Amino acid sequence: MSTFDAGRYDVIVIGAGHAGVEAGLAAARRGAKTLMLTLNLDMIAFMPCNPSIGGPAKGIVVREIDALGGEMAKTIDKTYIQMRLLNTRKGPAVRALRAQADKHLYVQEMKQVLENEPNLTLRQGMVNKLLVEDNKIKGVVTETKAAYYADNVIVTTGTFMRGKVLIGDLAYESGPNNQRSSTHLSEELERLGLEMVRFKTGTPMRVNSKTIDYSKTEIQPGDDVPRAFSYETTEYIMDQLPCWLTYTNEFTHKIIDDNLSSSAMYSGMVKGTGPRYCPSVEDKIVRFHDKPRHQVFLEPEGRNTEEVYVQGLSTSLPEHVQKEMMETVPGLEKAEIMRAGYAIEYDSVVPTQLWPTLETKAIEGLFTAGQINGTSGYEEASAQGLMAGINAASKVLGAEPVILDRSQAYIGVLIDDLVTKGTDEPYRLLTSRAEYRLILRHDNADLRLTNIGHEIGLISDERFARFEEKKRQIEAEIKRLEGIILKPTEEVQAAIEQSGGSALKEAIRASDLLRRPEMKYDVVSELTHPEEELAEDVKEQVEIQMKYSGYIEKSNQQIERMRKMENKKIPEDIDYDDIHGLASEARDRLKEVRPLSVGQASRVSGVNPADVSILLVYIEQGKIAKVSGDDA
Amino acid sequence: MSTFDAGRYDVIVIGAGHAGVEAGLAAARRGAKTLMLTLNLDMIAFMPCNPSIGGPAKGIVVREIDALGGEMAKTIDKTYIQMRLLNTRKGPAVRALRAQADKHLYVQEMKQVLENEPNLTLRQGMVNKLLVEDNKIKGVVTETKAAYYADNVIVTTGTFMRGKVLIGDLAYESGPNNQRSSTHLSEELERLGLEMVRFKTGTPMRVNSKTIDYSKTEIQPGDDVPRAFSYETTEYIMDQLPCWLTYTNEFTHKIIDDNLSSSAMYSGMVKGTGPRYCPSVEDKIVRFHDKPRHQVFLEPEGRNTEEVYVQGLSTSLPEHVQKEMMETVPGLEKAEIMRAGYAIEYDSVVPTQLWPTLETKAIEGLFTAGQINGTSGYEEASAQGLMAGINAASKVLGAEPVILDRSQAYIGVLIDDLVTKGTDEPYRLLTSRAEYRLILRHDNADLRLTNIGHEIGLISDERFARFEEKKRQIEAEIKRLEGIILKPTEEVQAAIEQSGGSALKEAIRASDLLRRPEMKYDVVSELTHPEEELAEDVKEQVEIQMKYSGYIEKSNQQIERMRKMENKKIPEDIDYDDIHGLASEARDRLKEVRPLSVGQASRVSGVNPADVSILLVYIEQGKIAKVSGDDA
Ligand SMILES: Cc1cc2nc3c(=O)[nH]c(=O)nc-3n(C[C@H](O)[C@H](O)[C@H](O)COP(=O)(O)OP(=O)(O)OC[C@H]3O[C@@H](n4cnc5c(N)ncnc54)[C@H](O)[C@@H]3O)c2cc1C
Ligand SMILES: Cc1cc2nc3c(=O)[nH]c(=O)nc-3n(C[C@H](O)[C@H](O)[C@H](O)COP(=O)(O)OP(=O)(O)OC[C@H]3O[C@@H](n4cnc5c(N)ncnc54)[C@H](O)[C@@H]3O)c2cc1C
Repeated sequence: MSTFDAGRYDVIVIGAGHAGVEAGLAAARRGAKTLMLTLNLDMIAFMPCNPSIGGPAKGIVVREIDALGGEMAKTIDKTYIQMRLLNTRKGPAVRALRAQADKHLYVQEMKQVLENEPNLTLRQGMVNKLLVEDNKIKGVVTETKAAYYADNVIVTTGTFMRGKVLIGDLAYESGPNNQRSSTHLSEELERLGLEMVRFKTGTPMRVNSKTIDYSKTEIQPGDDVPRAFSYETTEYIMDQLPCWLTYTNEFTHKIIDDNLSSSAMYSGMVKGTGPRYCPSVEDKIVRFHDKPRHQVFLEPEGRNTEEVYVQGLSTSLPEHVQKEMMETVPGLEKAEIMRAGYAIEYDSVVPTQLWPTLETKAIEGLFTAGQINGTSGYEEASAQGLMAGINAASKVLGAEPVILDRSQAYIGVLIDDLVTKGTDEPYRLLTSRAEYRLILRHDNADLRLTNIGHEIGLISDERFARFEEKKRQIEAEIKRLEGIILKPTEEVQAAIEQSGGSALKEAIRASDLLRRPEMKYDVVSELTHPEEELAEDVKEQVEIQMKYSGYIEKSNQQIERMRKMENKKIPEDIDYDDIHGLASEARDRLKEVRPLSVGQASRVSGVNPADVSILLVYIEQGKIAKVSGDDA
Repeated sequence: MSTFDAGRYDVIVIGAGHAGVEAGLAAARRGAKTLMLTLNLDMIAFMPCNPSIGGPAKGIVVREIDALGGEMAKTIDKTYIQMRLLNTRKGPAVRALRAQADKHLYVQEMKQVLENEPNLTLRQGMVNKLLVEDNKIKGVVTETKAAYYADNVIVTTGTFMRGKVLIGDLAYESGPNNQRSSTHLSEELERLGLEMVRFKTGTPMRVNSKTIDYSKTEIQPGDDVPRAFSYETTEYIMDQLPCWLTYTNEFTHKIIDDNLSSSAMYSGMVKGTGPRYCPSVEDKIVRFHDKPRHQVFLEPEGRNTEEVYVQGLSTSLPEHVQKEMMETVPGLEKAEIMRAGYAIEYDSVVPTQLWPTLETKAIEGLFTAGQINGTSGYEEASAQGLMAGINAASKVLGAEPVILDRSQAYIGVLIDDLVTKGTDEPYRLLTSRAEYRLILRHDNADLRLTNIGHEIGLISDERFARFEEKKRQIEAEIKRLEGIILKPTEEVQAAIEQSGGSALKEAIRASDLLRRPEMKYDVVSELTHPEEELAEDVKEQVEIQMKYSGYIEKSNQQIERMRKMENKKIPEDIDYDDIHGLASEARDRLKEVRPLSVGQASRVSGVNPADVSILLVYIEQGKIAKVSGDDA
């Protein structure tokens, strides 16, 4: 193939989905001359499935992305049609924002951000070839024979890799939303020795809003409190659209049951593994056979369209079965399907082949991020894209890699899970995956990560100064409350009574009063006559930090212990064969994953505490000790 | 193939491009239960090429579409970023509106109109099969095996039929803008006996606005007079964006010349015939070799994007040549290409196989409309879609077909040209194709066609009443001016002098004064003291109708003669072999085209005046006469 020299860049990002846009922006903003290549400029950061961003764990990731200087939070804040804070009645650890997006506006907004980024070139093109020399990436070649050179390439090709769309017994090569699929690039990765697996995901039908009988459903309005994902957002969209809730029933289930054999997923046509936590409706019926009904949310796809996404009915059943089953759901009896549901099967990279920076171990400078790494979900993709972009730029700048640990961010949990444990099904982030849930909160993402965002140049000095001021206020207020003793005066007792608490017997520290479960910050604050009125987010922090200080303290101790293990670095050139006493499974897995620390090693599946002890001793003794043990 | 019954409709429209949307809306609004099937709901009425609507002849078509109750004018009025009236210094016959469109907003707006049309179902789906019995259409089958039944099917599949994208020596199966191509449907049409030809068209690169040096170009602002395509539009977008003009030069031309052999078009790869009036830049260099420069317009693709369309550099040269040649153009030296130009080759139907209703002669109830009929251009497509939709509905309603003649509308010229003469290259509407240019004006499209639009139910009674009132005012004002004698008073002479005319020698009718070339309606009006101030569009009509009354009169006489020939209908079962004296070429061509009138017959290529006379006599004598003549 005779190519032409189309230019040299510091970083090339293949793909402009949710991972790609963050990767490109982060690299460019850190100062790397960056090229982004994508199949279709009209589909930048497109959402091929549900028109929503956030939700449990995922919503927290979006805030983390924002605190690190990423773009997703800002873009959804400009384009949502509905915003809700979930779990407001539960503890702060499980709270998270969830927004309904205007799908097309989101695309438009994100495209504009890319177009206006100075260090970034955005171009339509299909990458067919990766240029590699001595196991180092050197560039890419497109189908039009443009050779672009760079020492860092980030592949974020999502579900496009040998993509195959499936509906009933219809199957055809295709990316999501009828885009082109990417065949050669998948072959290239294989040629370079990367192990690939076949995954699948699916999406439900879209129906015309005008044909839904909403009177048979329950309304789900947005919050009327203004809220945003980004810590920089100051304008809120108060004109929101509702979603609607309805349910499947025994008739729906019977139709699905009767037709299971004609579902692409159950007929044997689908070879890939589907997502456990975003199951198709077929899966739900099979796996939860006794459940009499499943929720179906009707979500508008945007402000200027009548298309409605039927959340809960993701399916690859034949079109006529889709129609029949849908018509059994109250409100959808006469609904007209505008697009049928479908499943898509695609290649993804086994993520244990990656360093925690998302660089592949096999090819220096080659990163992969997003759904290609075996995850599912826009937020998971964005988070990985951001980290890959940051780390590619680090290589360009000769700066330190940025690796978040499991106590710093859900992003840390996500990437650590991927590169350490791998995944044999599309991986979704869940709160239950985090050990330090009370630390990885929605409300404190800025406190956890703005420092890092600023250090790597993705958070402006101005924003950082505002952040520092907020931090200062929180600390000052906590100190103030700790310093005030409240006597059981009439005013104090009355306030306590009104809050439903029991009367004071003796004087109490204001901070201890706030620690009582029923007390609100505002009440305590009024009793202590502060000099200035604090901002809502400062008050919230003070309240949460005081109220949960016991738990937080405990978590912090655990984190301390965990960090000790994380800080015990494993030399890159360690020879596991040289370590006596390791169980052979542990040895094999450690050789595969090549963890960077004893902490990471301890989480590799197949590695037991005994193996960790042996490893620890080996490393602490400067690799010289010979440890004896039971060799299995 | 086992299909399922997906429902019965009166009319099915395949495709939702510019032709499809008008067809679907017209049919539905006339009362036919209508289904539209299209490949991608995100690309409704998408403009794969220039972001503009209107221009010479085409702009008049858009107004005609509006007067008949179509949608294009309304949608562009809601979404333009710039509006201009062209040729304001020339006569009214060549005036036309041209708008720059916000490409994505146009799609969004049009999609919403379809979604909200009560009688219309819009659905994503790939039609692979046409159901035909006894040469009558019965329905369609999609790739998901949905069989939809209808006695009328309108195919509006544009450039998708066996579409093939070409850039340099790269070629791949694809519809425009990387959509899927439509292969089976093309085979179906062939199977049904329709003759197909291979055409091609092309599009230039898009560049990032931020990388253009506008200081080297000339600004082309929009008009600051509010204007609109639709007669119903009352809100105008005054916040407009400019376009920019620059030129190619000898360096550009040399690069193209040197690389001609690598252009897909000149290397022999392209088999299809390209559009003469939207040539690629390669074509321009080859055909106008001595021209030192060609215009290049830089047109924004929308309000919220930095993409700029480089009008004038349409090309299928290899990507690196595109870049080199573009960089020779002042202002584009450092421009970054966001999408490369490409050519697309596709199948189209030989349009002489159609009746003037756009129904195919071979299969009853099967219509074709738009680029599939060998045209090029959004407006040409819309116009055909509208007429096919109207006529399909006529069949459903048992109403008269609607066929516009060459004196009623450019739409009449377009369709008559297609079905009578055919075309051996992508057909574009030009003012020079019309015999009655002074009649087919931009300003009087409503006067020519609103009647028809109202009669067929596409123009509301309310709008029609407003239209009747306008007509009444025009007539009354003309009558008033004809009734007033102006004496050569001081006031009159002063007004004439100020207008630059020569002083009156004697009294003159106000209408005759207005006929003087230099006189404006407002001046004459003031001299005649009207009772009420008339609306601008009424004044404009009065002025044009009075000023050009001589020419208009002459045109009307010609039209009278033409109509006589149009009214001489040829029986459908005529046996041309039975007519002695016809030249054999004429006989063959008449058998092929099967014209509906002697007028149409006279325009069939290869049919000479002598043949027309023979045909005329034959028909007037009730088919019984045997006419003798020179049989060639
Ligand atoms: C049908 C479907 C259903 C889904 N359902 C769910 C769900 O229920 N829940 C959930 O959480 N997630 C779901 N997802 C997943 C979600 O869409 C993805 O996780 C997310 O979009 C992945 O983002 P990404 O950036 O990794 O990849 P994508 O958004 O897929 O972007 C990939 C990018 O790579 C580009 N590209 C591909 N190949 C090339 C090439 N060779 N050269 C240049 N560019 C290339 C593409 O143009 C695109 O810009 C679904 C996805 C699909 C398609
Ligand atoms: C690259 C390019 C360059 C062009 N350049 C110019 C130019 O310079 N000047 C100019 O005047 N015109 C140009 N055109 C032409 C202009 O785009 C078309 O004339 C116009 O869009 C045609 O409208 P249409 O409705 O006939 O077809 P399209 O707009 O092409 O729409 C076709 C529709 O059919 C649907 N479809 C196709 N197959 C199937 C199927 N099997 N089942 C269901 N749906 C199907 C598609 O999804 C689509 O909705 C260009 C077109 C292209 C692609």
